[in-house]
Amino acid sequence: MRTIAPGESLTFRFRADRAGAWLYHCSTMPMLQHMGNGMYGAVIIDPPDLPEADREYVLVQSELYLGAPGGAEQVAKLREGRPDAWMFNGTAAGYDHAPLRARTGERVRVWTVAAGPSEGTAFHIVGARFDTVYREGAYRLRRDDPGGAQVLDLAPAQGGFVETVFPEPGHYPFVDHGMRRAEAGAHGVFEVTD
Amino acid sequence: MRTIAPGESLTFRFRADRAGAWLYHCSTMPMLQHMGNGMYGAVIIDPPDLPEADREYVLVQSELYLGAPGGAEQVAKLREGRPDAWMFNGTAAGYDHAPLRARTGERVRVWTVAAGPSEGTAFHIVGARFDTVYREGAYRLRRDDPGGAQVLDLAPAQGGFVETVFPEPGHYPFVDHGMRRAEAGAHGVFEVTD
Amino acid sequence: MRTIAPGESLTFRFRADRAGAWLYHCSTMPMLQHMGNGMYGAVIIDPPDLPEADREYVLVQSELYLGAPGGAEQVAKLREGRPDAWMFNGTAAGYDHAPLRARTGERVRVWTVAAGPSEGTAFHIVGARFDTVYREGAYRLRRDDPGGAQVLDLAPAQGGFVETVFPEPGHYPFVDHGMRRAEAGAHGVFEVTD
Repeated sequence: MRTIAPGESLTFRFRADRAGAWLYHCSTMPMLQHMGNGMYGAVIIDPPDLPEADREYVLVQSELYLGAPGGAEQVAKLREGRPDAWMFNGTAAGYDHAPLRARTGERVRVWTVAAGPSEGTAFHIVGARFDTVYREGAYRLRRDDPGGAQVLDLAPAQGGFVETVFPEPGHYPFVDHGMRRAEAGAHGVFEVTD
Repeated sequence: MRTIAPGESLTFRFRADRAGAWLYHCSTMPMLQHMGNGMYGAVIIDPPDLPEADREYVLVQSELYLGAPGGAEQVAKLREGRPDAWMFNGTAAGYDHAPLRARTGERVRVWTVAAGPSEGTAFHIVGARFDTVYREGAYRLRRDDPGGAQVLDLAPAQGGFVETVFPEPGHYPFVDHGMRRAEAGAHGVFEVTD
Repeated sequence: MRTIAPGESLTFRFRADRAGAWLYHCSTMPMLQHMGNGMYGAVIIDPPDLPEADREYVLVQSELYLGAPGGAEQVAKLREGRPDAWMFNGTAAGYDHAPLRARTGERVRVWTVAAGPSEGTAFHIVGARFDTVYREGAYRLRRDDPGGAQVLDLAPAQGGFVETVFPEPGHYPFVDHGMRRAEAGAHGVFEVTD
């Protein structure tokens, strides 16, 4: 990794030898500001035994800090941990207006990565339960287990996936169950039809 | 789920088909305010192989936001994540004055659910170690394992249980080990006798 | 446990019968202030099957609250959760100036304990991946598993270890991946040579 000038490019090559949901991000200082202005993404490496799902989605959660990038006001909010909103895939509450789709009875897999820059997530789908949880490279719950999970908890820079089967048609909100984050943008909707 | 008028009632029926410690809560908007004013509870579904314990307790942790429910001052605290106190089962430090009871040598199981609305917990019993941890529908530690755990960490809307055996009589505080939360109400006491 | 006067001493004896990375701390009231001024440490009890590592380090992360110990200003910051900085082993960014050493190809084990007093950590080594994760007395990932982990997440008073093998010489920062904490002291460097 090294810093490059505007207009230059740099190619990274790597062998995908360990499964997981990985966060990549800019490594130029100050990283807090760069990540706080969107310099991040996700790489998904399927585990070798991954069963088929009917649908797969990837949701990258992050905080939103308004203000001129790198300006005093924005930097203060970044340093003090006072986000203005929370986002999935770069938009606050965007999937309220463009719902993710699924059908009843389908197995839906949702990969989630916490991009921060400073907070994690408590990922939850209202009205659904997770029968499968994979987190930081290992299964925590498998579908034949007798238990169920309601939240995938991720610290900043962690990733994983959950699986669910929606039993009935309807609108199922997905949220960070830290409710102040859900009501300030970490919110979307699954539209489930027969 | 649907919104009903004051005085009306609504019955939910469900089959308890996946084990765990589940949070239920009001789903009428704005949920942050409703949950922040106490509209939540826990449902415990025992895993099929659950061994007997001598005593079982359920502790639901949540934040307390003072002020007129839905008033500007309370809503600001809810949105900014500035609770006035933390509670177990709806009271700040209530179990300091009405301790939970146990006897030495008994196996004590404590179910814990993090109701938020915005924060989780780091549940700990001072002076005890957990030899069993069950979290979000799966065992993380079993009593014959060589390791021990000091904290059950729950994100908002997660649940689970821990088990311990108190070796000696005495007073064992239980806390959210985030110490500022413990000292502002997330605190109680086990009174252990021979 | 009991409170003693300045100049007195007290010896604790215990049998190390459950493996893990344990936090110990002062239990005299007010604990938040005592822990916030450094009254804590770590006890490491190896699990019985622990394989050899080429190097082992222990990093205890905590918050720093400046001001006269117990003074109004410091106590307000402790209660409101506004640390001035974050530290590994009692110094903010200290290992930037005195890097931890390792050689390429060596197996490096890093034990981490979150001392708080109020926050946990998302421990990460930039440029490395963890093939082994042990957390709160149990393995979460073992080196022959196909997955990898990027962060060891610890709530306050939790502990564990991670293992990695650095593939190339260079400087690998280690951080709390909550980036505002990393940039305010929860930062150090591994200097890796051939």
